[in-house]
Amino acid sequence: MQDILSTYTTHIEVQVAWGEMDAAQHVNNTVYLRYAESGRIHYFNQLGFSVNSTGEGDPVGPILAAIQCKYKFPLTFPDTVTIATKIKLDSFDEFSFETEQIIFSHKHQRVAAEVIAKLTCYDYKALRKAPIPEKLKADMLAAEQSAKA
Amino acid sequence: MQDILSTYTTHIEVQVAWGEMDAAQHVNNTVYLRYAESGRIHYFNQLGFSVNSTGEGDPVGPILAAIQCKYKFPLTFPDTVTIATKIKLDSFDEFSFETEQIIFSHKHQRVAAEVIAKLTCYDYKALRKAPIPEKLKADMLAAEQSAKA
Amino acid sequence: MQDILSTYTTHIEVQVAWGEMDAAQHVNNTVYLRYAESGRIHYFNQLGFSVNSTGEGDPVGPILAAIQCKYKFPLTFPDTVTIATKIKLDSFDEFSFETEQIIFSHKHQRVAAEVIAKLTCYDYKALRKAPIPEKLKADMLAAEQSAKA
Amino acid sequence: MQDILSTYTTHIEVQVAWGEMDAAQHVNNTVYLRYAESGRIHYFNQLGFSVNSTGEGDPVGPILAAIQCKYKFPLTFPDTVTIATKIKLDSFDEFSFETEQIIFSHKHQRVAAEVIAKLTCYDYKALRKAPIPEKLKADMLAAEQSAKA
Repeated sequence: MQDILSTYTTHIEVQVAWGEMDAAQHVNNTVYLRYAESGRIHYFNQLGFSVNSTGEGDPVGPILAAIQCKYKFPLTFPDTVTIATKIKLDSFDEFSFETEQIIFSHKHQRVAAEVIAKLTCYDYKALRKAPIPEKLKADMLAAEQSAKA
Repeated sequence: MQDILSTYTTHIEVQVAWGEMDAAQHVNNTVYLRYAESGRIHYFNQLGFSVNSTGEGDPVGPILAAIQCKYKFPLTFPDTVTIATKIKLDSFDEFSFETEQIIFSHKHQRVAAEVIAKLTCYDYKALRKAPIPEKLKADMLAAEQSAKA
Repeated sequence: MQDILSTYTTHIEVQVAWGEMDAAQHVNNTVYLRYAESGRIHYFNQLGFSVNSTGEGDPVGPILAAIQCKYKFPLTFPDTVTIATKIKLDSFDEFSFETEQIIFSHKHQRVAAEVIAKLTCYDYKALRKAPIPEKLKADMLAAEQSAKA
Repeated sequence: MQDILSTYTTHIEVQVAWGEMDAAQHVNNTVYLRYAESGRIHYFNQLGFSVNSTGEGDPVGPILAAIQCKYKFPLTFPDTVTIATKIKLDSFDEFSFETEQIIFSHKHQRVAAEVIAKLTCYDYKALRKAPIPEKLKADMLAAEQSAKA
């Protein structure tokens, strides 16, 4: 476990809720994406960047443009998952970048899902896509750098 | 069916989603409250009152202070429900009022749940409770009146 | 904090997820009920009683008959809540009993919501309500007793 | 609208719920996947194939192995979406196949998201992947054929 999780930059733990299972007796597929969302929000909060579409602070922030999720095995209650997140360093263009995440089951000591999200920066005032803010990019690169160190 | 539904003022139909069932093979208890929320939002939209905490329009609007739900029988997919909503006319005080709702199963032709919500008016600018706006109260009373006519 | 929480029998902590907030910028009202559900499931799991509608084990278990929730103040992300649960000892009849719960905000050091749930025992094989199993009742009373000790 | 929707095989309409919006004032990213799930369940129900992991009927059924979603623009309440679904005919291997879906906004008359799901057949009794049942495959091909006619 240590090995694979330590190749990611930020980590949060979430307890699986019984009510997140669906009628197939497994955690519903949409919940994995909620876990991944919480992991990304945590990543940006760690950088001091709060995702905020309503007024205060920087009007430019990343929004989700696309997501891919591979479901490796079905999660069930009770379990705790670690969501591990990093930026894909070769994914940057002017407006966008990608995160790579794994959802790791404590009960099974295995990766339950792999998630890649494409985030595009968006100007909530001008209502159109915007270049990645310099500071945000520098902060992400620094976070990735220090995670590797 | 007609009879009980017609004693309520507004009605919306929602199709039960498969993914709203939980591991007990029934629609999860929290989803009934989502249905009721949708019914209340619809009621206020019909009055031309949009619930809006973020800036434009009237800064005073109703927020949920308390809710009671009686679960009469378990909903399952597939089904369609009608959520029927009215204001409880004897519930008004200076700041608050109550809605009464039923969630009616088309498949079973029976009431699946009864919901009573207490709504308290809140001033999103001043950040404290506020008297029910005169126009909102007048509009609710008029809607209830014309439903009875 | 200690004081109020310690009057309850079981406790779990849940981190509020960003995605649990709705367009009013607060944790959505239905999510409080998900937290309460998780607290009740935890309570019964602690007793060694797994809520199971699909075959194995005891065919009789408690289902939710009614719920009341008082919303005391709006939760927001980031926060962690403790859900504290106990059985209401004077609530028992042949088929039913009630749980009392609070949802306690770590950020605000205050109770965000109070929840009372009425649970009725149900025979998943016979498909009708059933008396509270003797062992379940004895285990609940013992748990409450030892919490008070 | 007609044109793009008519290239898909099954269609369902879902009303966007206010409570599906998140704090960014848009329908939360996970909800698009719930819509897509509802569209796939509908597709299989139309074939007379009920997805059922709990006992009765065929023990082999498709489970979600991977999903991709492209978010084209943010949905908001109020709106109604049509979820249109078809099988990707060149995606079949022994165990798996893919669905293609669009989520179409009535308010904007535009595609809000494109979803590709990879489904792998799974034997719920043997607890391992299984070849696509002959009848299911034949029914899917027939449905696709008649949609094109």
